[in-house]
Amino acid sequence: MKVKGVNLGNWLVLEKWMSPSLFDGTTAEDEYYLPTQLSKEVYEAKIKIHRSEYITERDFTRIKSMGMDAVRIPVPYFIFGDREPFIGCIEELDKAFNWAEKYGLQILIDLHTAPDSQNGFDNGGISGICKWSQDPDEVEFELTVLERLAKRYGTRKGLWGIEILNEPILEDMWESMNVAERYPAVDPEKAKGTKPNTMEFIRGFYLEAYDRIRKHMPEEKYVVFHDAFRLKAWKDFMREEKYKNVVLDTHQYLMVAEMNGCEQNVENYVSYVEELKKDIAEMQEYFPVICGEWCLFNSLTVGHDTKGGQTVLNGVEGLSEECISAETKKEIYNTLAKAMLDAWDAGSGYFYWSYKLLTDTVNTPGWVGWDSWDLGRCVDFGWFPIEK
Amino acid sequence: MKVKGVNLGNWLVLEKWMSPSLFDGTTAEDEYYLPTQLSKEVYEAKIKIHRSEYITERDFTRIKSMGMDAVRIPVPYFIFGDREPFIGCIEELDKAFNWAEKYGLQILIDLHTAPDSQNGFDNGGISGICKWSQDPDEVEFELTVLERLAKRYGTRKGLWGIEILNEPILEDMWESMNVAERYPAVDPEKAKGTKPNTMEFIRGFYLEAYDRIRKHMPEEKYVVFHDAFRLKAWKDFMREEKYKNVVLDTHQYLMVAEMNGCEQNVENYVSYVEELKKDIAEMQEYFPVICGEWCLFNSLTVGHDTKGGQTVLNGVEGLSEECISAETKKEIYNTLAKAMLDAWDAGSGYFYWSYKLLTDTVNTPGWVGWDSWDLGRCVDFGWFPIEK
Repeated sequence: MKVKGVNLGNWLVLEKWMSPSLFDGTTAEDEYYLPTQLSKEVYEAKIKIHRSEYITERDFTRIKSMGMDAVRIPVPYFIFGDREPFIGCIEELDKAFNWAEKYGLQILIDLHTAPDSQNGFDNGGISGICKWSQDPDEVEFELTVLERLAKRYGTRKGLWGIEILNEPILEDMWESMNVAERYPAVDPEKAKGTKPNTMEFIRGFYLEAYDRIRKHMPEEKYVVFHDAFRLKAWKDFMREEKYKNVVLDTHQYLMVAEMNGCEQNVENYVSYVEELKKDIAEMQEYFPVICGEWCLFNSLTVGHDTKGGQTVLNGVEGLSEECISAETKKEIYNTLAKAMLDAWDAGSGYFYWSYKLLTDTVNTPGWVGWDSWDLGRCVDFGWFPIEK
Repeated sequence: MKVKGVNLGNWLVLEKWMSPSLFDGTTAEDEYYLPTQLSKEVYEAKIKIHRSEYITERDFTRIKSMGMDAVRIPVPYFIFGDREPFIGCIEELDKAFNWAEKYGLQILIDLHTAPDSQNGFDNGGISGICKWSQDPDEVEFELTVLERLAKRYGTRKGLWGIEILNEPILEDMWESMNVAERYPAVDPEKAKGTKPNTMEFIRGFYLEAYDRIRKHMPEEKYVVFHDAFRLKAWKDFMREEKYKNVVLDTHQYLMVAEMNGCEQNVENYVSYVEELKKDIAEMQEYFPVICGEWCLFNSLTVGHDTKGGQTVLNGVEGLSEECISAETKKEIYNTLAKAMLDAWDAGSGYFYWSYKLLTDTVNTPGWVGWDSWDLGRCVDFGWFPIEK
């Protein structure tokens, strides 16, 4: 099995930096606080227009024409519309299945958020909070979402698989990302008791989730679990015969390499990726390994140290004028794309993060260089190689 | 001079069929009635999100990568925000200029609507009404919009030209389109006095508009006028020395050919286009001629007679299942693209209508075949040839 795919990030799970104008007129930094600052009607109007315009049929034809096989679609825990004040989006996912099947793509459904969050990231739904795993009722709720998804789409031709939970965080990543400072909680009261998940919990949750999903989803479809930022910690996991077609998902960004001390030059980036390739090859003995999130973004091509991928939204100044020539940029990106695609090829493939972002590098100060997160632009610029 | 371009239709001037969900929850058929059925806040929220997501920086990089030189941007008469309840969009056009200049594209600003309309089409702003030219104050207002546009952008590198007014209608097209029935007026009282413009008025308006625009826009930029659906009626127009770089714009759709009796097969479409090519070559002796709107759409490829391009929105039933094979479709579109591009090449180039539409041919019944209006999809499917 080999998959080439791309994420439809920021469609059904919002990330402010990927479409800032959705947050205009509010001070909200994440999906959770957006409806608290808008009337019900205005919130609904914004969300519905966003969902109906951000990803449409024509994006599926474009993705197919890029040579991709699949899309990974992040969905929120409130997808079924049973968590006020949030608005469900199951109809949008229904449409996506029809588009995918018409144009020969498959969908990996990725449950990307949980009530009170599994990681405290802005893209976990609520910044600075990480308490979901401590609440058995909400853990159970999350399992019912997975079950309902498996029931609704389990036998669809357009289904590639279901990913149990995006990026549940453990102690080590909690520290190295410095979550509490990078994503400060709006409400300290609500943040009380926030802490990273335990490995014991995550493993137990994955096992239970597998059973719940498989009840409704045939064995030829994949159950995907995220490595919780510990790629090599799963050698003794799900070794029993009953676990079929389980995929290990690892997310690999050069900004994380930088955060961990990788020097900001092409040679070191490539060495880093070559090491990674070895780890992937090693884990591929245990599970098909996919790199479910990655991109070409790095500080070298931006033109300054982004401190691990931080932006003006995190209070880190960015550039407003290009300082790297178009030729040099292309050269760097082409070299990195080659190395990274080669590493994912030691596993079972990849999903680029992300297909599309609306971030405006021309009209909003500080965003020069952030276009490389956008696969569409990477293809337009010739940064990312596509075979027809 | 030769220009290859595409329209950014439905961005700043709405057409319901191109993004139906913007009209969800209302019975409005056009831009004029949309705000009458929504609260001010909801109207604003919808319009702002639409504008910020429909066309963004990444569309300019895509259009450039398609090998285009320019975009034609339809703008409404209320672009400057001085016509309540409509919301201005000059900031969006400002952004577009910055994107265009960054990525090496040029912009043809196309004033697409007038108060009480110049044609009665849905895309003229208000269906079934055509009274603008009878009101001297509104005629003057329209001229001030052109002046303000020329003043603001006249010397911008990214400006290709300004088009005085989109598709002002005369008696003959009024009859053959059967405007009163195809676009029925919502308010018969308001429609009273509606009638097509006179050629005398249009000519006078174009002459006045030229002077007003040229006051602020250097001679190397183009002033574009639409042929009012009479391509060959302009041989004695603007012959004087003072008129510099004036471009004649003609819009040519196969659905209009069909409406006028052209049989629905490839041979007849091609013959029709070859005749057109002769007319364009003839008029090219007088002005550089562009085909400012055209597309590959035709009834043959849809699979049934669309009665001159009518849809479920006009009460004409469409297809919900493909009945033409993908191979046949591609063959037909490739043949037509070749013939049409060749015809525009006898003039000074073209702008495809349109770059993008959100019309969903999979999930909404009746829209099979309408994807050929979308240049993005035409390129994805290999229907439209692009040179890199």
